[in-house]
Amino acid sequence: MDAVNIVFIGAGNLATNLAKALYRKGYRITQVYSRTEEAARTLAETVEADYTTRLDGLQAEASLYIVSLKDAAFVELLPEIVAGKEKGLWVHTAGSISMTVWEGYVERYGVLYPMQTFSKQCEVNFQNIPFFIEASNRKDTEYLKSIASTLSNKVYEADSEQRRGLHLAAVFTCNFVNHLYALGADLLEKYNLSFDTMLPLIDETARKVHELPPREAQTGPAVRHDENVMNKHLEILAGEPKTQEIYRLLSESIYNS
Amino acid sequence: MDAVNIVFIGAGNLATNLAKALYRKGYRITQVYSRTEEAARTLAETVEADYTTRLDGLQAEASLYIVSLKDAAFVELLPEIVAGKEKGLWVHTAGSISMTVWEGYVERYGVLYPMQTFSKQCEVNFQNIPFFIEASNRKDTEYLKSIASTLSNKVYEADSEQRRGLHLAAVFTCNFVNHLYALGADLLEKYNLSFDTMLPLIDETARKVHELPPREAQTGPAVRHDENVMNKHLEILAGEPKTQEIYRLLSESIYNS
Repeated sequence: MDAVNIVFIGAGNLATNLAKALYRKGYRITQVYSRTEEAARTLAETVEADYTTRLDGLQAEASLYIVSLKDAAFVELLPEIVAGKEKGLWVHTAGSISMTVWEGYVERYGVLYPMQTFSKQCEVNFQNIPFFIEASNRKDTEYLKSIASTLSNKVYEADSEQRRGLHLAAVFTCNFVNHLYALGADLLEKYNLSFDTMLPLIDETARKVHELPPREAQTGPAVRHDENVMNKHLEILAGEPKTQEIYRLLSESIYNS
Repeated sequence: MDAVNIVFIGAGNLATNLAKALYRKGYRITQVYSRTEEAARTLAETVEADYTTRLDGLQAEASLYIVSLKDAAFVELLPEIVAGKEKGLWVHTAGSISMTVWEGYVERYGVLYPMQTFSKQCEVNFQNIPFFIEASNRKDTEYLKSIASTLSNKVYEADSEQRRGLHLAAVFTCNFVNHLYALGADLLEKYNLSFDTMLPLIDETARKVHELPPREAQTGPAVRHDENVMNKHLEILAGEPKTQEIYRLLSESIYNS
């Protein structure tokens, strides 16, 4: 591969995982920016890069800038981030931000969205992670696709609207799903039962939708309209009105599907 | 193994999967009851059993009766089901029904609760399915555990209250989780995107809680208090008030965790 010098702006969960994966594939990460020094240094050390905590300390000569910040911070800081580096190729990694956010600030820009849940403590295998790519011109689209393809077998193009839909769907199938795992763990703790007993069920629930559309895979009291069981469950949850409300709302939603 | 003659009362998802697994392990299923002839016959043929659609046609000499009916039907029909067979060993497979339901009806009784999501179309590997066992006397507890152990490596004792907690937790981590998959699938359909693109994310979300407690594994806009993104998502869902309400409630619950 030709020499690609990458600067990472952001050192959060996604940036950390993506930077490490690119580094392992032989890409040169030249700098990491984060507002917090510890985050910047930790990631920089791992990928043998320099680091900075100041936006005016960003290198000017990178061939690719990958911005991975909280949405609000990104939009607010954008002019400051790109200042003096308007000729570089700029991408962000956010599901919910349109590509047009770059318009008027830089000449070459795009989006590199790996759809996955990233935690710093958990190494992720990138091979199966879908990447959704968009860029301001065809050449950069192909260029970004070629980079993503060195990490993953699943590289697609998606426009900003599709990416927004993907991100929203991912909140339901990942973030909300994980929260239901957490509520289940709370319940088990009350009964002195280990969360580990749930893992085979959790795995099978995920595996099943590889074979069946989720609606056909649905089981449980709500889909078989077993009011007896649902009423008992609501009673058990009487002391936890918030969890009870989630139970009621999701059961109704299944019931009416 | 000594000759165990099993009668199944019920031919739904759980009964079908359990009967097949026992049959494959060499147990003799002598009869299947279901109110609907097709269900009774289909399962009976698979496990080389007789079948009946009448409760007064149930065999009297089985060594084990496994009752797997909808909760309400079970409780209502119980006296009729056991009539004339009060000396047999009776178990039900329901998470949410106390073992004491049998009291006064039969002499030997218990519960055999395999915690898993069962669909007739999907064959399940029983080896990792946790079985939770309870019985009216020690000997039958050991007997039921020995049967469950021929199917699974994860056989535990649990009293009725623990089992109720397990079942409720399973509704959250399986039934509700699957419904979130379904809501995600609906969203993707609107954007002309295939549900398959979600599978790596779904798998990783499940895999992650093998390594991290669910609360530590939480990612997404709600846990990082990214109001920008959440407001955009609520806007996209403006036309679907029910799904929007689920989004709001689950985000609040994550936010306040």
